[in-house]
Amino acid sequence: MKIIQPKILKGTREFGPQEMSKRNLVMAKLKNIFARYGYDPIETPILNPAETILGKYGEEGDRLTYSFEDNGKRKLALPYDLTVPFARYFAANWQQLPLPFKRYQIQRVWRAEKPQKGRLREFYQCDIDIIGTESLIAEAEVARVITTAFSELGFERFKIKTNSRRLMNDVLLNFEVPQEKAMAVVRVIDKLAKIGDEAVIEELGRLGIESAAELLAAIRPEANTAATLGKLANYDTSEIETLLGYCRALGISEELIDFDPSLARGLDYYTGIIYEVISLDNPELGSLCAGGRYDNLCGLFCKESFSGMGVAFGFERIMIAMEERGYFASLRLNSQILVTIFDENYVEYSLKLYQMLTTAGLNCETYFEPEKLKKQFKYADRKQIPFVVTLGPEEKRAGEVTVKSMQSGKQKTIPLSQLISFLQNYEQS
Amino acid sequence: MKIIQPKILKGTREFGPQEMSKRNLVMAKLKNIFARYGYDPIETPILNPAETILGKYGEEGDRLTYSFEDNGKRKLALPYDLTVPFARYFAANWQQLPLPFKRYQIQRVWRAEKPQKGRLREFYQCDIDIIGTESLIAEAEVARVITTAFSELGFERFKIKTNSRRLMNDVLLNFEVPQEKAMAVVRVIDKLAKIGDEAVIEELGRLGIESAAELLAAIRPEANTAATLGKLANYDTSEIETLLGYCRALGISEELIDFDPSLARGLDYYTGIIYEVISLDNPELGSLCAGGRYDNLCGLFCKESFSGMGVAFGFERIMIAMEERGYFASLRLNSQILVTIFDENYVEYSLKLYQMLTTAGLNCETYFEPEKLKKQFKYADRKQIPFVVTLGPEEKRAGEVTVKSMQSGKQKTIPLSQLISFLQNYEQS
Repeated sequence: MKIIQPKILKGTREFGPQEMSKRNLVMAKLKNIFARYGYDPIETPILNPAETILGKYGEEGDRLTYSFEDNGKRKLALPYDLTVPFARYFAANWQQLPLPFKRYQIQRVWRAEKPQKGRLREFYQCDIDIIGTESLIAEAEVARVITTAFSELGFERFKIKTNSRRLMNDVLLNFEVPQEKAMAVVRVIDKLAKIGDEAVIEELGRLGIESAAELLAAIRPEANTAATLGKLANYDTSEIETLLGYCRALGISEELIDFDPSLARGLDYYTGIIYEVISLDNPELGSLCAGGRYDNLCGLFCKESFSGMGVAFGFERIMIAMEERGYFASLRLNSQILVTIFDENYVEYSLKLYQMLTTAGLNCETYFEPEKLKKQFKYADRKQIPFVVTLGPEEKRAGEVTVKSMQSGKQKTIPLSQLISFLQNYEQS
Repeated sequence: MKIIQPKILKGTREFGPQEMSKRNLVMAKLKNIFARYGYDPIETPILNPAETILGKYGEEGDRLTYSFEDNGKRKLALPYDLTVPFARYFAANWQQLPLPFKRYQIQRVWRAEKPQKGRLREFYQCDIDIIGTESLIAEAEVARVITTAFSELGFERFKIKTNSRRLMNDVLLNFEVPQEKAMAVVRVIDKLAKIGDEAVIEELGRLGIESAAELLAAIRPEANTAATLGKLANYDTSEIETLLGYCRALGISEELIDFDPSLARGLDYYTGIIYEVISLDNPELGSLCAGGRYDNLCGLFCKESFSGMGVAFGFERIMIAMEERGYFASLRLNSQILVTIFDENYVEYSLKLYQMLTTAGLNCETYFEPEKLKKQFKYADRKQIPFVVTLGPEEKRAGEVTVKSMQSGKQKTIPLSQLISFLQNYEQS
C-alpha cells in the first residue's frame, strides 16, 4: 500500500499540545475580559452560501475567497473575515436580540493567498462589536476592553492610535479634495507608515491632489494629543474630545491613547472613530488590533440601518508578540502527577491510587505498562510532569508512597493518607 | 441595491449567545475532565490536501466528503471526522511526542449529506485517544473518562456497552464464518438494535450464514455480565475479564458497564475492545459516545505501526439529551450587573462606577445612552442581567447607589463603598 505523506497544506497550521496550551491560555484570557464587559459569544457557520461572502470585499477579496460548488451544484464559500458573517447573523436575528447587541467571536477565516511569512491561508480572527447605538460610550468601552486586554496579556508598551473619519473628511474638504476622490485619498494616506511621506505625496499627486504636502503637514500629529488638538483648532474636534473625556472616566491612562489625524484605515465602511493598536516593543508586527465605527454594515442583508463600533484583535500577531517576549516560558501541559506502576502485580494498586487522585480533582495520569521505572520517569520528563508517584512493595507494606519532584530531583516518602494534601499544596504554590 | 437574504446553508447552524453559553459550558466541562486524566489538546487544519481525507471511509464516505479545487488547481478537502486528521498528525509528529500519546480534540467536521433531523452538514466532534500502548489500562482509563464525563454532565442513567472484536472473531470462527466474510457479518450484526433479530438473520442468510439464529443466540447478552461470561465459558474471555478488573480498580461501578457479546460497531479498523454509550433516559438518540481499540490507524500515513484506543463523544447528541433534561434551565449569560445612566450629566459618573466594578472582576456592563430608565431596565430584562445599579442626583449627593434585583424586584440603596462586596456576595450565592 502506498503511504500518503502526512503533510498539511501550506499556509495552514496544526497545533500540538504545547502550542495549544498557549493559544488556549490567550483565548481564555480574552474571553474572560470580553465577558467582564458584557460581551457574549456567537458562532457562525463555516460553510456559507457563496452570496453571503462574495462581493463584499472588492475584486481582490473575491479572488482571495475560497469558494466552490458542492455535489448539489450549490455555490459555497468559506468566511474571509468575521465582519460579514456577523453582519449576516445580526440582520437575520436582530429582532430577537437585546439592543444594543454586544458580541465577541473567535473563529478561523480563510484567504486563498500565496503563503509567506505572516500570510496564512487559514487563521483565527477575534472580533468584538457593539451594534445598535451611536453613542461614543461604545467607542470608549471598546478602548477600555483593548487596554485591559493588552495589559492583561502582558504588553507593557502599547498605544491606541485614534482618529475620526468625520474629521478626516472635514480636512479633505478644506483641501478641496472632491467627494468622489475622498476614499481613494484615504487609502493612500493609510499607507503613510509603510511607504513614507514622499511616496504618499507622489501618489496623491497622481490622484490630482496638488496641495498634498500641505495636507500631510496639516494632519501630522504633534508631540501630544493636546498639541495635536490645538493644531486642528479650526476644525470640529468635539467628537475626539468627548471620546477622550469618556476614556478618562473609564480610567484609561492618557498615555495609552494617541490622537493621530493622519490615521486613515483603508476600509471603506468606517464612518466615525477609528482605532489601531501598536506594540512599541514589536512595531514590525504592525497593527495588533484595529477597527472603528460603521453606519450600515448590515445594509447588504437587511433594509434597516444600524450603527455599530467594533474591532478585530489580530490573534496570530498577538501570539507572535507574546512568544517573542517569553510570555509562555513557564507554561506547562495539563498533567501534574504521574502514577507509576511498579510491576505487573501492582497494576490495580496503582490504578486505585490514580483514581483517588483524579477524584480529588488533581490533573493526573498513570503509566500504561509495568515497565522499568526508568522508562516511566522518562515519560514524565518528556511531558514535563512535575511530580512522579511510585508505590512498590515497601511503600505498600508501610501504607506509604514516594513522591519525586522532577524539577528539584528530590524525593520524599509520605503516608498515603497525606498524599492528596501534599500534592494540592504544591499545585497551589 | 439588492438585499441578500441573510440565510445560512441548510444543515449548518449558527449559535447565538444563549446557545453558545450552553455549548461552552459542556465543552469546558469535557476539557476539564480530559485534562484531569492527562489528555492534552491538539488542533488540525480544516483545509486539507484531498489525499489526506479521501479514500479512507469507503465510497460512501468519499461521496459525503466536501472536496474541491482551489485557484491553484490543488485538490482540497474538509475533514469528515477527527480520526483521520489525528492519524495524519500523529504520523507526522510521533517522533517528537511523548509515547504513549494522549490527546483530545474538539473541532467541526463536515458531511455532504441531505440535511434532515439529526443529520447535519457541519457539526462538532469530540475525540480522545491514547496511542502507542497495547495495555488494557488504556481501555479502562477511557471507560473512567467516559463515566466521569457522563456523571458530571448530569446523566443519571447510562451504560457503557462493551465487547471485544477478538472474542467476536472467535465466535464467528466457531460458527464457521469464513474469514473473508467476517467483516460483512460484523456489519450486519451491528444493525441488531436497529432492525431486530429476524431482519439480521435474514441478511446473514443472504451472506450464506446458515446457523445465523444459533449465532445470535450465542452472543445474546444475559441478565448480567457474570451470567454472560458464564455463557461464553468455552471462549477465551480473559481480555474482558482483565478489563473489568481494571475498571473496578478505577472505581467504576459495575452497573455502568455491560458486557454485550453482540455489540459489533460497524467500522473495519477496530481490533480489540469496543465501547458504545447509551443513555437509558434517551435511548432514541442511540450511541452518545463510541469507539475502541485499533491496531494500525496511522498505517496510511507512516510505515510504523501503533496500537491505540479512542472514543468519540457525540457532542451534538449529548447537547440534545442535556437540553431535553432541562440541564441548562438556570444558565445565564455573562453580564451580572447593568450600570444605568441617569441623564446626560451623569455619563462620566456612571462610567467611573462601571470601571470600578469591572476592575473588581465583576461581569458588568453600562447602558450606552442617557435614555429613560425604563428603557434601560428593559435592556437588563432582555439580557437577563440579574442586578441593575442606578445613581442619580440623590444617590450622588449621599455617596450612595441603588441596586435592584431583577429577579425579586426588590431594591436597596447602599453606600457606594459597599457596592462591590454587596455584588460579590450575590455572585457567589
